[in-house]
Amino acid sequence: LKKLRQITVIGLGLLGSSITLAVSRTLMGVKSVGYSHRAVTRRKARRLGVAERIMDDIHKAVARADMVILATPIRTFEDIFRQIADSLPAGCIVTDVGSTKQEPHRWARQILPKNVYYVGSHPIAGSEQRGAEFARDDLFDGANCILTRTNSTSPKAIRTLGKFWSVLGCKVKVMGPGQHDRILADVSHLPHVAVAALINANSAEELKFAGRGFIDTSRIASGPANIWTDVLLTNSTNITRGIDKMVKELQKLQKAMNSGNEKSLHRLLERARNKREALIKYKMKTRTMA
Amino acid sequence: LKKLRQITVIGLGLLGSSITLAVSRTLMGVKSVGYSHRAVTRRKARRLGVAERIMDDIHKAVARADMVILATPIRTFEDIFRQIADSLPAGCIVTDVGSTKQEPHRWARQILPKNVYYVGSHPIAGSEQRGAEFARDDLFDGANCILTRTNSTSPKAIRTLGKFWSVLGCKVKVMGPGQHDRILADVSHLPHVAVAALINANSAEELKFAGRGFIDTSRIASGPANIWTDVLLTNSTNITRGIDKMVKELQKLQKAMNSGNEKSLHRLLERARNKREALIKYKMKTRTMA
Repeated sequence: LKKLRQITVIGLGLLGSSITLAVSRTLMGVKSVGYSHRAVTRRKARRLGVAERIMDDIHKAVARADMVILATPIRTFEDIFRQIADSLPAGCIVTDVGSTKQEPHRWARQILPKNVYYVGSHPIAGSEQRGAEFARDDLFDGANCILTRTNSTSPKAIRTLGKFWSVLGCKVKVMGPGQHDRILADVSHLPHVAVAALINANSAEELKFAGRGFIDTSRIASGPANIWTDVLLTNSTNITRGIDKMVKELQKLQKAMNSGNEKSLHRLLERARNKREALIKYKMKTRTMA
Repeated sequence: LKKLRQITVIGLGLLGSSITLAVSRTLMGVKSVGYSHRAVTRRKARRLGVAERIMDDIHKAVARADMVILATPIRTFEDIFRQIADSLPAGCIVTDVGSTKQEPHRWARQILPKNVYYVGSHPIAGSEQRGAEFARDDLFDGANCILTRTNSTSPKAIRTLGKFWSVLGCKVKVMGPGQHDRILADVSHLPHVAVAALINANSAEELKFAGRGFIDTSRIASGPANIWTDVLLTNSTNITRGIDKMVKELQKLQKAMNSGNEKSLHRLLERARNKREALIKYKMKTRTMA
């Protein structure tokens, strides 16, 4: 395992650019290199100065890296792993910031050489915005970051990567990719699907009467459709189960409403309310409100 | 129809107290009177100085009012109408700020004397907070306010009431209670139910991994359960239809995910995204982002 001297980030959108900015701010002596396959993105990243060096050759970009971080849509990982496999230096850590983890682990196992260390990362931070212009060097401050490992993952690589995200401000947890994908299906992917369904169930004319509550509730639906398509397609089994659970809960509320069962309706609303209050308290206590 | 000299607000929670505060700020020479049946609420309202006068007798509170505004949970209206019916001065405007309008119109028609003017009001403003301590004299600035009328509603009372809400900063629209309840079911009541179902579909343990997106999406679920129980019970037919529509949209997404239909999935997400972007643009243009 190599000492961190150079970190290369592939993909210079909101997350990738925030990582290179955060590296420059917090890791003295570590060189940040950024790569994007799009010339317009590279120009923007150079103009904004998000990394020490922006490169246009992915092989050269990773050739001297001690850590390579993929920050592109999930379903590009397989192809990127193939592109960089032969250029990665021995002992290099390879990770990604994708929102699902089972597929990336599978691709890494199949494609990456045995002399590099793959660990999955999922810093739970970001916004509905996209692009380097929204990058922030403190984006990861106070965020949970889940590292994913299998039986063959190097404990030392996990430690190094955990330290890296901690320096960027994250609270780090380690779990298997299966558990990660089950949890995130419920707390992140299902909400996205639910809000999309909610908006699509409404007519544009009616939406004009929406208030502040709806604006806030629906914010996540403004996230980039291509990135979310990849998330949903790589975690469809878990999300499908989540949708089934949610439909059941909707029908419970529907039944209580239609039978005029005030007590049951109040209890269902109060349960949701209490769970959210407990969540807010937990987030305040652990300072993971990022 | 009387000139506005005194406005009496029944119920001194977030909305009621914000109305009396806004009246004091914007309507010179109009006396604001507040009533609550709870001593602790009256004490708090007095301490915070939300109205010129806080009274503990509902009959005396309305006896000299030119306008009476109910700001209590919807299903208390029927009883309050009965309590005040004999004390209301002739020519008085009676309104309310409930989130559903068909039932209030029915109760008003059945109970209120013929010499007072009932018009429904729904200022689409507020928050998940409750209580006079969260009241703001600018709560209605830039909010849509829907006035509801039937064939027997006095046009002059509508004009006076419309002017009142305009002075408080609202953009006023007039429609029937049936149309109001259909629209609000979709843009407000269904979102509330959907978010409650979403939270209840999740375990408290998993929720600890929720990020900022979930916190924002779920905010509305922290609204008071008793107020929302009344909203849902007085608009259950429309909301039931909304839940059916939403379940259909969830199943469309589920199907696209499970069949790996990337194009269809992307289209559904993009449709939701575009609708929200159009909504934000409309809200910015019309300055109704309250």
